[in-house]
Amino acid sequence: MSLVPTATVSEHNSRDSCWIIVHSKVYDVTEFLDEHPGGSRIILKYAGGDATEAYEPIHPPNAILDNLPIEKHIGAIDPNTVVAVVKEVTEEEKQRQAVLASRPPIDEIINLHDFEAVAKKVLPAKAWAYYSSASDDEITIRENRAAFQRVWFRPRILRDVSVVDWSHTILGCKSSFPVYISATALGKLGHPDGELNLTRAAGKHNVIQMIPTLASCSFDEIIDAALPGQPLFVQLYVNRDREITKKYVQHAEKRGVKALFITVDAPQLGRREKDMRMKAVDDNGTAKVQDGQSDVRRDQGVSRAISSFIDPSLSWKDIPWFRSITNMHIILKGVSTPEDAILAYESGCQGIVLSNHGGRQLDTARSGLENLIDIVAALKTKGPWPNPNFSIFVDGGVRRASDVLKALALGASAVGIGRGFLYAFCSYGQEGVERSFQILREEFEMNMRLLGARSISELKPEMVDASALSAHVGVTPTDNLYNNTYQHLSTAAFRESKL
Amino acid sequence: MSLVPTATVSEHNSRDSCWIIVHSKVYDVTEFLDEHPGGSRIILKYAGGDATEAYEPIHPPNAILDNLPIEKHIGAIDPNTVVAVVKEVTEEEKQRQAVLASRPPIDEIINLHDFEAVAKKVLPAKAWAYYSSASDDEITIRENRAAFQRVWFRPRILRDVSVVDWSHTILGCKSSFPVYISATALGKLGHPDGELNLTRAAGKHNVIQMIPTLASCSFDEIIDAALPGQPLFVQLYVNRDREITKKYVQHAEKRGVKALFITVDAPQLGRREKDMRMKAVDDNGTAKVQDGQSDVRRDQGVSRAISSFIDPSLSWKDIPWFRSITNMHIILKGVSTPEDAILAYESGCQGIVLSNHGGRQLDTARSGLENLIDIVAALKTKGPWPNPNFSIFVDGGVRRASDVLKALALGASAVGIGRGFLYAFCSYGQEGVERSFQILREEFEMNMRLLGARSISELKPEMVDASALSAHVGVTPTDNLYNNTYQHLSTAAFRESKL
Amino acid sequence: MSLVPTATVSEHNSRDSCWIIVHSKVYDVTEFLDEHPGGSRIILKYAGGDATEAYEPIHPPNAILDNLPIEKHIGAIDPNTVVAVVKEVTEEEKQRQAVLASRPPIDEIINLHDFEAVAKKVLPAKAWAYYSSASDDEITIRENRAAFQRVWFRPRILRDVSVVDWSHTILGCKSSFPVYISATALGKLGHPDGELNLTRAAGKHNVIQMIPTLASCSFDEIIDAALPGQPLFVQLYVNRDREITKKYVQHAEKRGVKALFITVDAPQLGRREKDMRMKAVDDNGTAKVQDGQSDVRRDQGVSRAISSFIDPSLSWKDIPWFRSITNMHIILKGVSTPEDAILAYESGCQGIVLSNHGGRQLDTARSGLENLIDIVAALKTKGPWPNPNFSIFVDGGVRRASDVLKALALGASAVGIGRGFLYAFCSYGQEGVERSFQILREEFEMNMRLLGARSISELKPEMVDASALSAHVGVTPTDNLYNNTYQHLSTAAFRESKL
Amino acid sequence: MSLVPTATVSEHNSRDSCWIIVHSKVYDVTEFLDEHPGGSRIILKYAGGDATEAYEPIHPPNAILDNLPIEKHIGAIDPNTVVAVVKEVTEEEKQRQAVLASRPPIDEIINLHDFEAVAKKVLPAKAWAYYSSASDDEITIRENRAAFQRVWFRPRILRDVSVVDWSHTILGCKSSFPVYISATALGKLGHPDGELNLTRAAGKHNVIQMIPTLASCSFDEIIDAALPGQPLFVQLYVNRDREITKKYVQHAEKRGVKALFITVDAPQLGRREKDMRMKAVDDNGTAKVQDGQSDVRRDQGVSRAISSFIDPSLSWKDIPWFRSITNMHIILKGVSTPEDAILAYESGCQGIVLSNHGGRQLDTARSGLENLIDIVAALKTKGPWPNPNFSIFVDGGVRRASDVLKALALGASAVGIGRGFLYAFCSYGQEGVERSFQILREEFEMNMRLLGARSISELKPEMVDASALSAHVGVTPTDNLYNNTYQHLSTAAFRESKL
Repeated sequence: MSLVPTATVSEHNSRDSCWIIVHSKVYDVTEFLDEHPGGSRIILKYAGGDATEAYEPIHPPNAILDNLPIEKHIGAIDPNTVVAVVKEVTEEEKQRQAVLASRPPIDEIINLHDFEAVAKKVLPAKAWAYYSSASDDEITIRENRAAFQRVWFRPRILRDVSVVDWSHTILGCKSSFPVYISATALGKLGHPDGELNLTRAAGKHNVIQMIPTLASCSFDEIIDAALPGQPLFVQLYVNRDREITKKYVQHAEKRGVKALFITVDAPQLGRREKDMRMKAVDDNGTAKVQDGQSDVRRDQGVSRAISSFIDPSLSWKDIPWFRSITNMHIILKGVSTPEDAILAYESGCQGIVLSNHGGRQLDTARSGLENLIDIVAALKTKGPWPNPNFSIFVDGGVRRASDVLKALALGASAVGIGRGFLYAFCSYGQEGVERSFQILREEFEMNMRLLGARSISELKPEMVDASALSAHVGVTPTDNLYNNTYQHLSTAAFRESKL
Repeated sequence: MSLVPTATVSEHNSRDSCWIIVHSKVYDVTEFLDEHPGGSRIILKYAGGDATEAYEPIHPPNAILDNLPIEKHIGAIDPNTVVAVVKEVTEEEKQRQAVLASRPPIDEIINLHDFEAVAKKVLPAKAWAYYSSASDDEITIRENRAAFQRVWFRPRILRDVSVVDWSHTILGCKSSFPVYISATALGKLGHPDGELNLTRAAGKHNVIQMIPTLASCSFDEIIDAALPGQPLFVQLYVNRDREITKKYVQHAEKRGVKALFITVDAPQLGRREKDMRMKAVDDNGTAKVQDGQSDVRRDQGVSRAISSFIDPSLSWKDIPWFRSITNMHIILKGVSTPEDAILAYESGCQGIVLSNHGGRQLDTARSGLENLIDIVAALKTKGPWPNPNFSIFVDGGVRRASDVLKALALGASAVGIGRGFLYAFCSYGQEGVERSFQILREEFEMNMRLLGARSISELKPEMVDASALSAHVGVTPTDNLYNNTYQHLSTAAFRESKL
Repeated sequence: MSLVPTATVSEHNSRDSCWIIVHSKVYDVTEFLDEHPGGSRIILKYAGGDATEAYEPIHPPNAILDNLPIEKHIGAIDPNTVVAVVKEVTEEEKQRQAVLASRPPIDEIINLHDFEAVAKKVLPAKAWAYYSSASDDEITIRENRAAFQRVWFRPRILRDVSVVDWSHTILGCKSSFPVYISATALGKLGHPDGELNLTRAAGKHNVIQMIPTLASCSFDEIIDAALPGQPLFVQLYVNRDREITKKYVQHAEKRGVKALFITVDAPQLGRREKDMRMKAVDDNGTAKVQDGQSDVRRDQGVSRAISSFIDPSLSWKDIPWFRSITNMHIILKGVSTPEDAILAYESGCQGIVLSNHGGRQLDTARSGLENLIDIVAALKTKGPWPNPNFSIFVDGGVRRASDVLKALALGASAVGIGRGFLYAFCSYGQEGVERSFQILREEFEMNMRLLGARSISELKPEMVDASALSAHVGVTPTDNLYNNTYQHLSTAAFRESKL
Repeated sequence: MSLVPTATVSEHNSRDSCWIIVHSKVYDVTEFLDEHPGGSRIILKYAGGDATEAYEPIHPPNAILDNLPIEKHIGAIDPNTVVAVVKEVTEEEKQRQAVLASRPPIDEIINLHDFEAVAKKVLPAKAWAYYSSASDDEITIRENRAAFQRVWFRPRILRDVSVVDWSHTILGCKSSFPVYISATALGKLGHPDGELNLTRAAGKHNVIQMIPTLASCSFDEIIDAALPGQPLFVQLYVNRDREITKKYVQHAEKRGVKALFITVDAPQLGRREKDMRMKAVDDNGTAKVQDGQSDVRRDQGVSRAISSFIDPSLSWKDIPWFRSITNMHIILKGVSTPEDAILAYESGCQGIVLSNHGGRQLDTARSGLENLIDIVAALKTKGPWPNPNFSIFVDGGVRRASDVLKALALGASAVGIGRGFLYAFCSYGQEGVERSFQILREEFEMNMRLLGARSISELKPEMVDASALSAHVGVTPTDNLYNNTYQHLSTAAFRESKL
């Protein structure tokens, strides 16, 4: 590979000829500009210069290799010509660093909400927008949380709860609790070590991580960070090019991954408006779009930018093919209806995840927890439940061990948590993830004792009252004239203090 | 027609003799003062002067001709006597112009709510009040929106959704999506080009516009702005003088309009209090009504001012007459009950619109979407559904393509959007309307893929959970003593930043 | 009657000997101090002086005569000894007068809420507290309003509604609409003419007023203000001394009153905490209650102060006695259950009022509107409904003609409005009451047209959907941790304006 | 016991040798540091000094004796060596004292909420956090309150309610109303006299107090403060060491206690996050936890600190043993399900308390009131209800006599109030408790009259509508885009005041 002087690169700084440097390699992306899922504008910003910093967190490591023909790989940058750039720290970044320094000490973090509250303040705005956003009116993401709180406990008393055990087996793998780390994309947006924070903490505490297709770290980096024998699952966005998918799946199996979670609720990634707005504001400050220059893609946010490879033609016909290329457990992630649950069961899969993608895909889809009721009932028509050969997982909106216990009481096999752990490492790195595990353990111990369940197998449907789970209602819109006029009651008034 | 000097007009500046100039014509409105639906006060404000600017946006173009006897048409103003008036720009208008200049760039508009939010800030207060107002406590207008969000999706997975097609046929006319532009009145209050913004955008993008009786632009102006073959519908308020109505209907048919939507929910236009308040404040600044001078009509707002011609005696007996004067499809707009749906079906109409007039007529009427359930069930007793000879449309509260998909899954033939497109042109003119179409298309593509429906015909009732649609409930009024005393939980506290 | 010099009165200014002047008469109330329902403190404030101003608005005119033995009536004040007191206007009162002067012009009042909003600002704090307060947590008062908004309309179309007629007959009396003025106490707290505002407006507009036992004006003053033949009802708190009651009832009948409404939901007047707090703050500014001096009654507010004469022993056994002393219609005001409705029917009453006393008695009692459903059903078991010999009235929470139409559709005979008209005269005197009638008439016309009912008799149960009326529910308490962390969606941002 | 000079104690001021003074006795707690449930840090703060003030309010009086081996009891402090410490009053305490001085006069306290509102302001932050906190998201604590307001009254009329009687018999003991004082811990955190405030007021007014295991005052102090024959109950946390429990129970019986309430919903005390946060902030101001020094227990708040002795192995097998050691009534406190209610009945207990520990244990457990419905129904299958040999008590969320009446109408035997009385003495000492009794009496009189029940035995299920009690529902998450754009209605505007 030839060496290219920095000065040469900087000559190619326009739409007519656009070179960029990524990780010290030089690429000619002129013809790629219009194909870039994130729009041409963001690339042109770095035309003739180094785009590594912007590129890294939001692209899978092999993004350029997969998308740019080899003849556009110009060569390596000549190291002698690189001028060390004194990275100027923006005012916004300075403030962010100050906020970071004032984080609460980690032992004041006492529930998973705390991580999210910290992450909201310490994350760069774009990262927060990407992680926290959901689709359209964000009704489903909030319903996911609310659904758990419509299930009430019916605790049993006077059982000897000296010893309670919340360890569990998930798809044949031991887990220190009935929870796995669900896949979330682009971990480096939130922390320089990205997904490795999860891998390391999971290994140390015997928790199972699901590796995301869209990880910021490469698949092998993650596997390499795992301990020997540490169980891992992998999440799959199916590529339009099935050979790429096959290679990826078989590589995962070879490297010891135990189960393949095929995402089936995302033929296209959702319109996430917080993410879209962030993008628009970021790139377009005060500029007016020039007349006639349509650049539709520019405002579609991070999620659209990274997902054009996903195959919308994926269908039930593909399942036998997956079965033919791997012996891993095959789990369909993103099932919502009893009809599809039965189809999954009959197609020879080993399980399903009742998920709406954290509210990021079809808005006003029901929560996984709500769907669980109907789907367990449907699967019971096929034989005894739980079924050792078929698992039902639930994810979305989980913040408490009590949420997990509710899902398990209602028949779930285990529960996935995505954002909860993501925000843990965004705010405190690996230590945050470990703290989140510790919090969950404390909550499991407490709640199982109070519920009268000494092991996961003692969680029974009669321990919860789920009668309100499907009770969605409409409240009459507020009568503002009345409410503004009505004067609220107040408690007794203090006197003016003499102090 | 004789020429009248400006000085002569200005002598007739009192209740005893009141002349006004409109579009350079002089009219003697002395005897008309007490008949003016908007009250005499507003006319007297312009007595002896030019009333064109106030007259134009809120009157149909032929209002004077229709209402003032020919002998009161004094003549044309003598152009030599007209003094060019330097129109003074009010402070309020200056501020409005500044706000207009600071609108978000149109490509930051990513949903239909955004148009409304922009319109709210850039419209003159009176226009915003007229457009946004609804009747009484405005419960129905909000319920219209909320109803859609009580229908939850049950998405199907693993269907090949590479190609999704949201084109549709509405009353035999091709449409690029299952949505038509519903009639809204007085477009020039919001934009100088008024309804033409819609006509032009609709022609370009193959969308069907319903022309309102109370358009600011004349019927022919709108027709003339349409492309050859561009399908159009027309909305009708039935006049007390049926000859006027007959002329209007037959003219519409002659000019190629495909369907006649007869408004049946407005024998009288509703009390819209925002509109009424705006009128009161505007005209009456700090003045006290003089004792004994009753002027009841003065505070009834724009909507009452323009609607006195509507015939409250319209009844089922009139339907055969309509059938006799036109071959257009006849659709009744504003049906709410299965009883009336069956009557419409049996009376030989080609369809109905389940509508409550955007919440502007009978408050606490149920939403069209809620009524859809019962009405489809009732019509199924008359034969298979969908019925190629009878259509059910729904309007009210639609903001998202997902709303449209819900209505169609429940049996609607297509969906009307009124305010959504109105606010699009109020904020960005024709370009806004086009942007709104683009947004809907993106949303249709996304949501149909995520729902697993590849064409409109694949939308099925089982794709939605509408069990909550009729679940209106009462929540106990808040316990303010308790709530004020209860201390909310909070997340971990940040330290004082050292910055 | 002897003349008493002012100086003599002023010597009796202590607990040991306490004289007061009321309406130029001198009374020795020393022994009455401890019996005074409002506590001794308020009397002692005026010991040796003139108490007229404080006495007048909150006592029925004959209160002293009824309660103080004749030997304690010392005489008339010697007019030659009266020093004209320059009434000093308090700062608070000055501010109130300024607010009064800035009221909205009455023709800007466009619904009954407006009167309440004005009254809230222009009333003296004590009057507002007395009128607006309800019992305990004020849940019932708000539920009364909310209940109407849980009934939805099912409007019929294409009926000839050129002519709509909302006149009605109530207990054989013609009324210009199906609404009567319900009794509310102590009208002079809010306006110097007190209840006469209602009488005069009612006479002019053919509306029926129910005269309250606790009127500030005397019964005869009210009757005298009525027009010849003007129909009036009377409300009755039954006195412990039945002779007083008998005299009152027979006097009412003799003076032409048509119906007797016996209050049965108030054996004791409710604890109305707004009223109680107002009293406490007013009298006790910064003072500390002296040790050992218990004065329990002092903090019970106006309502307790005026109601000690009410007989808590009133029971079904008394109904025949009432029947024996009067030929007026007998209506029981304050019925809540089908059981009691049947008892009332069987006891020979002519009707009942489904009322919870405007939320002022038993808190968390259900609304009259909700009770209407069960009670109409119960009465239908006794014969056809409506029954010409038995009426069901409903009051509580009515603000709109549409509320009235809902109650009538569900079987009510007519509807009472109390606070609505009270606030009308508190804010604008008689003119306010007339305006309120005009507003109701406009609303009746509009809503009956839109509903497709041309007369009161065309109001039918199928015109409303009352399925939500009894649907009270519990919503899970808010998840504050989640909600505080969740970031709301927002619409597109405006740029900084260049203005 | 030897005398120890102050100077000697102060030499033992480190983790290596840590002595502390409590109530003038010297203890060597070096080896106890790591066992201290509240963590070592709080002890080390007082190493070598006097810890009495911190120790007293949160430890049962015999805590040291029970936990520290006798050989660690060094001796008594030499009184001659004690230097009188001028206690410095902190700024926070000064402010608290000023707030205390500006409390509302007690006769302005008109409901139980008022006490809580005052307590919230006058309590030290740590005490407020400990008392007011509940577990996890504090959903159950609020639901406890809300549940009462989902039960509506169906009041009966025209019963002679001259005399109403709310006295009651609870477990054979006379009580002036159907309410007992439920056990709450650590009363001295809120008032120097702690639980004695309750004992004294209860004796004076014939109310039954339940003595808490975790009282700040010793059991005997409380008994000694009672009047001769004053009935008392006792609450029991069962100790891991059953001999301690046996001694405690038999001592209680010997001293005349009438009933033993065994807490069965707290094998471990809940995670109460307000309490935990308070602890964290208090001890850890700005300090960073040193690396490697894990001190998990430090952030668990007061409740965890005091509860490690509770035996989580307690089970149904223990009930016969309790029966064998005492003849007191045995009541299980903390039952939630019909299953366990039946077990309690069959195990020979005399009653149960439907309680969720004031929301402090298992969050999202249902309210006792809601559970009452099912449990009464279950017990009715065992014989007539009420059952003279088995009582059902309810506690949690009670603020009004009307709440009590609802529970009794639904079948409860009596109702417990904990925080209500606790806040009464925290804000006003014994006088506050007496005032709270007076308020309840007034409310009982009022509400029984208005309900038509003249004695407790006249309270019947048909007097309430509890159909909404189990109706928990989910409301669609708010549509923020719509709601932010929608413009609320407002009432008529006032003019600028001329003042």
